[in-house]
This record gives sequence, structure tokens and C-alpha cells, in this order.
Amino acid sequence: MTSALDERPVESSPARFEVLVPPPADGSTQARLGRLALSHGVVETPQFMPVGTNATVKALSPDDLREAGATIILANTYHLYLRPGHERISRLGGLHRFMAWDRPVLTDSGGFQVVSLGEMRKVDDQGVTFQSHLDGSYHRFTPELSIAVQEALGADIAVAFDQPVPPASSSRADVAEAARRTHLWAERSLAAHKRPNQALFGIVQGGLDPELREESARFVAGLPFDGICIGGLAGDETAAQRGVALDVAVRLLRDDPRPRYLMGLGSPADLLDAVHRGVDLFDSVLPARVARNGQLWTPEGRINIRNARYADDDRPVQEGCRCLLCRNFSRAYLAHLFRAEELLAYRLATCHNMTFTLDFMADIRASLRSGTFSACLSELRARAAGKGRVSAS
Amino acid sequence: MTSALDERPVESSPARFEVLVPPPADGSTQARLGRLALSHGVVETPQFMPVGTNATVKALSPDDLREAGATIILANTYHLYLRPGHERISRLGGLHRFMAWDRPVLTDSGGFQVVSLGEMRKVDDQGVTFQSHLDGSYHRFTPELSIAVQEALGADIAVAFDQPVPPASSSRADVAEAARRTHLWAERSLAAHKRPNQALFGIVQGGLDPELREESARFVAGLPFDGICIGGLAGDETAAQRGVALDVAVRLLRDDPRPRYLMGLGSPADLLDAVHRGVDLFDSVLPARVARNGQLWTPEGRINIRNARYADDDRPVQEGCRCLLCRNFSRAYLAHLFRAEELLAYRLATCHNMTFTLDFMADIRASLRSGTFSACLSELRARAAGKGRVSAS
Repeated sequence: MTSALDERPVESSPARFEVLVPPPADGSTQARLGRLALSHGVVETPQFMPVGTNATVKALSPDDLREAGATIILANTYHLYLRPGHERISRLGGLHRFMAWDRPVLTDSGGFQVVSLGEMRKVDDQGVTFQSHLDGSYHRFTPELSIAVQEALGADIAVAFDQPVPPASSSRADVAEAARRTHLWAERSLAAHKRPNQALFGIVQGGLDPELREESARFVAGLPFDGICIGGLAGDETAAQRGVALDVAVRLLRDDPRPRYLMGLGSPADLLDAVHRGVDLFDSVLPARVARNGQLWTPEGRINIRNARYADDDRPVQEGCRCLLCRNFSRAYLAHLFRAEELLAYRLATCHNMTFTLDFMADIRASLRSGTFSACLSELRARAAGKGRVSAS
Repeated sequence: MTSALDERPVESSPARFEVLVPPPADGSTQARLGRLALSHGVVETPQFMPVGTNATVKALSPDDLREAGATIILANTYHLYLRPGHERISRLGGLHRFMAWDRPVLTDSGGFQVVSLGEMRKVDDQGVTFQSHLDGSYHRFTPELSIAVQEALGADIAVAFDQPVPPASSSRADVAEAARRTHLWAERSLAAHKRPNQALFGIVQGGLDPELREESARFVAGLPFDGICIGGLAGDETAAQRGVALDVAVRLLRDDPRPRYLMGLGSPADLLDAVHRGVDLFDSVLPARVARNGQLWTPEGRINIRNARYADDDRPVQEGCRCLLCRNFSRAYLAHLFRAEELLAYRLATCHNMTFTLDFMADIRASLRSGTFSACLSELRARAAGKGRVSAS
């Protein structure tokens, strides 16, 4: 593993990760504070990445994202390949310029979306043939095409093409087969990747089976990726099942110098638990999606703003919150906007949940910096418990 | 008329209007530069008021409005009476606090909406009985209730309850009857209005008939209103018909010291023409509505951003425009957002058309200030001609 890593000279690496505060020697937590330097800026970890599927985080502008505290966002390779097309974005100067976001971006590989199409796709060792969800047209993704699309988009971090499977409802044979294919594709993704100012992360699969998960982690960690994604979780598994699989992977990666990114996790309780188990990076549509449905996250739990009780409530959604919504407007006003189906409702609610999530991560980082994470864990869990009810809904 | 005006001491007036540059003595234009001081600030005229029907200008935040240059907005009494309710807004501290807008607001009387309900309303001399467009429930508006609702909302300017009729398709008898009723209701609105920090504007009706229009202007100008609305236009009439009716009203009001507000007009060509004929204030949903449909206004005419030709166009919608859209994003990006039905599309497009409209009014004011309006008229008309094509679509 170390020899493979040595092939890339550190000084020219497009992703320089430094662990500023390692987990304590007493083993009370695997949580760590880090700093990830990318082409477009520095990302402090643990960190949450808002999802900008169509080169826009739904309802927000780049200024809204900056104000919420986002330092890195994720964009979806599958969606941008189909519309407006990666070659078009490349001609227009790349994804950063296209969406006017000058901070780091990570693109996923499209594997999750393509493989999730169910009846509309067919997987073989060479790649995946699928039908577009937009117009039913036929397409084929291979590791090489996924990398080419991501190089055209020009994100700071690209991700190897993989085959995730539903962790809890897949047979061991299916999980093993998908992991085998993911490993083949990891090597082909690495071989295909040329863009020098773009990092490439590999993806660990292996479902919930400790043996398969460990085997996958060992295989992917042995390749010269710039970071390690833990895929195939945040699916249909329980939190306890996820914890076991996560611990297996992190234990294998314990002495690995690269950042760990758990794909697809978004509720505050889940984020906190995964940080505690040693994860550095996260992404999810959850905070934004529930916001557009009128669910606001606060330290005291969720608010469903469509509930009649808020129609006359002149308090902000969260006292002392610095977001656009809470600084200016009452619960009653937001309730009115949702009832009237006014567009401003979705922006204000998304600003709040995004600010809440990013502030929660910042508080986690502050406790890691001051060495009080383990001591703060019960208080952080209490805050997350209110929010945890959201994730379960 | 002057005696009626004298009943209100000038120093305590909730609307102090000053004509800074009167129309030139040569009669080449009736356009004038003015300054209207209201409870929440000063409005330079000629001025356009964005429409915030449900206590929000669709797709924009108060910051967006300020950045676009809005100094006064309009909110709809009918809509806010039905939802969330004027008493609720009053309990929550009034409309300004409710929607976090600290600059002037004008509320209309609800007359236009109530009378536009067609089969769902019945008009008599006492008021209008109508069914809610939201749930079919029965309601009755009278001049007294309209004023009570507007006092509860607490706008800087309230408007007398009136009965507009479609100007071109109504019989002379219907127009005369509606004007008679509007005059009755003007007096009752004045008698009912008590809120000291709120101005009250009267509404001139009289359709397209010069005699009825002049009679209505004379009657309403004889009452101690703080400003004069010219209603019952911007409907099914031609621009030429509107011009005739407008000239009749403005001629009658020539020596009147109060601001003139033409209700419901919004295309740049129409605004320019009405300024030229002596109008000070305007409102319309047009710039925002066409923006949400993907029509962008520029000095060279309209852009329908859904047109395939813009998919690869990396230029801003309008070169040199200071708006949120043009400062940051390409036509190609906006075209993508509209195709993907992303919420940011509607905000960006609305920011542009609103900025364009308010900048156009600012340029008109600048030419009035420098005494070059008549000289600039052909250039302003050329810019509006591109935009005029929009208003005709």
C-alpha cells in the first residue's frame, strides 16, 4: 500500500490531507480533526458536503451556500452527463465556472445512480448499460467513461466507478460479486485517470458482511487513491449494522494517511455516530429534501412548519440561529409561505437546515480541536437526538 | 379641491410629495421628477413597484429586492385577507415586520381582485359578496372592511375601495355605474380611514370614455386623498385608447400637487409612454411573471432562455448588467436550470427582469433630473421597443 502511494510525489498531490488531531490513544473514539487541501481550497474535516445534483444545490445560490458555511459540495456525474452534458460543461469552462462556485467540488462516479435504475440497467464486468430517467434513451457507463466525464467536469475530487448493492437485502453472493467488480473497476478507473489537478478517491464495498467489507477495504486501500470512500451503506441497513461494517473498514484503514468519506449519510445523529467511528467526509440530500417538505431541524428536534400550531408563532424557527431564515423571519411567516406555495419558502427552509447541519459539523470540529469531543459526546448526542427523530421520519 | 386638501395639516401628512422637476413649459412632455416621503422612507418618482401578492415578491427575498433597487413594493389586500389573514398579520406586528421589508409598502384595496372573480361575486352599492378562490368560502368586502384590512396590514399607503370594469369591453352604462359606485366608496373609504401614519389614495375610474374619465378624475381629485390612482386601465384596451384616457385624467390633475399612480402597467414601453403622459407610480406582476416563464428583458429585446440557441451561450443574459444573474452566470447555465426545473432559475430570472425594470426607471429619472428627458426619449423608446415586443407576447 505504502509503495503504491509513493508513486505519487506528495508535493504535486491534488489532495493533501493532514490529521491535525488524531484519535486519542485511549480508544474512546476514532474521531479525528483534519485538513484537506484541494485545488480550489481547504476543507476542514469532519465535513458535510451539500449535494448539487444538477450543478445547483436545490433552492440555493452559491452565496447562500457560502453563508451557510459550505466549503465543498458534491455534484452528480450521472445527472450532468445526461443534462446538460459533460462536454458542454467542459466547453463552458468546467463545472466551477458553470455554476459560479469557486470552492472545492467532488463528483461521484455515477455508479450509485446507474446501478439504482433497477429494470432500466444491465451490469456486466465491462460496465453498465442503462436507460436515461429523462427520456429513456440508452447509454453505457464504463469506468473509463465515468472518469472521462468527471475529468471534463473538472471537480477537485473524482471518484472511481463502482457497483453498490442494497446492503441489507442483497445475498452474500451478490455482495461479493459487486465487490469483485468494484475492485476491477477501481484499477481501471485509476489507469484511466489523467487530470493532474484532480484527486481520485476509491470506493470500498462489501455490504454488511465483515469479511467482505474488510477484504474490500484492504484491496482498495492497496491502490494509490487520494482518499477512500466507504460505499454501499446509508441504504436499507440499520444504524447498528452500518456501525459494524464501518468499524471493520476503519480498523483496516487505521494507519492509512488518507481521508475517509462515507457516502450518502445526512441526519445529524448518523453524522455524529460516523464521525465517532472515524469518518471525515459526508454527503446527503437529506437536510435540503426535508427542508423543501417543511421540516426544520433545531437543537430541540424537528419542526413541521405546516403544523397549525406555527401559524401564529412569532418566534424564529431556532433562537439565535445565524441563517437567512432565523435572522429575519418568524415561524408564522414561513408557515404562510409554505401554505401559499411561495418559492421563497423552499430557499429559506433549505438555508436553515444547511446552516444547522454545517454548524453541527463545526461544533464537532471545535470539540475535536479542543480535545473535548469525548466529553462533549453526550451533549452532541442530545442535540442529535432531537434531529435524529427527523432522520427516522 | 384645495379646501378639502387643507383639512389635513401638511406637516403631519403620511405622504409628502414634492415635484422636483416639473414638466417643461413647452408642453413637449408631461413627465416629471418627484419625491414621495412615506412612513418607511422616500420613494423617487417615476417609480415602479414590484408586486408581492402573498407578502413576498415571487422567488425573491427582501435582500434581492433591495439589490434590484426596489424602494417600494405592493401587496394585495384580497390575498392577505384570505390567507394568512389581516388580523394575524396585525398580531404579528404588521406587514413590514411579517415579511421583513423595512421600506415603503402600498396595499391595493382588493377591488380589482374581488371584482375580477366573475361568476364568483355580486356587486351592490353597499359592497361586494364573493367566494374565495382558495376554498369557495363566502366573504363580503365593503369600503369599510377594505380600509380596516389595510389599516391592520399597516402599509405606508392604503387605497380606496373601487369597482373597476374591463375598459374596452364594458358598455358606457356599466362604466358609468361602476364610476358612480367608486365615487360613493371613495367617500366611505375616506370616512372610514383613521390610521395616522398611513396615506390614503383615491381611485379614478371612468373607462375609456373621455367624459366619464374626466368626471371621475374631477370627483376623486375633489376629495382629500394623499394621492390619485388611475384605475380601470392596463386591461383589455389598446395602448392608444389608454393614452387618450390617461391624457384626459392627467390634464384634469395638471395643477394637483399629489402623486399619480397608474395601476397594473408593467412593460418598459408602456411605462415610458405613461411617464411621458405624466404618471409617477406603477405596479405590475409582468416582469416577474415573464421571468418565471424564461423570458429575460434586455436592451436588445427579449431572450426566451428555453430556446435551444442559448444552451451553449457563455455570455451573460445582458452584458454589463449588475444583477445577481448577469454578474455570475451564463445564458447556458440559466438555460440548464430552466430545463432541469431548478428553483434557482426562477430567482435568477426574476432578479434580472426586476433589476432591468428598476434600472430603466432610474434612467428615466436621471434624464428628468438633467432636463434631457425629451432629448433622450427616442433612445429610451428604442430600448423599450426591444422590451415592447415582450409586453405584446
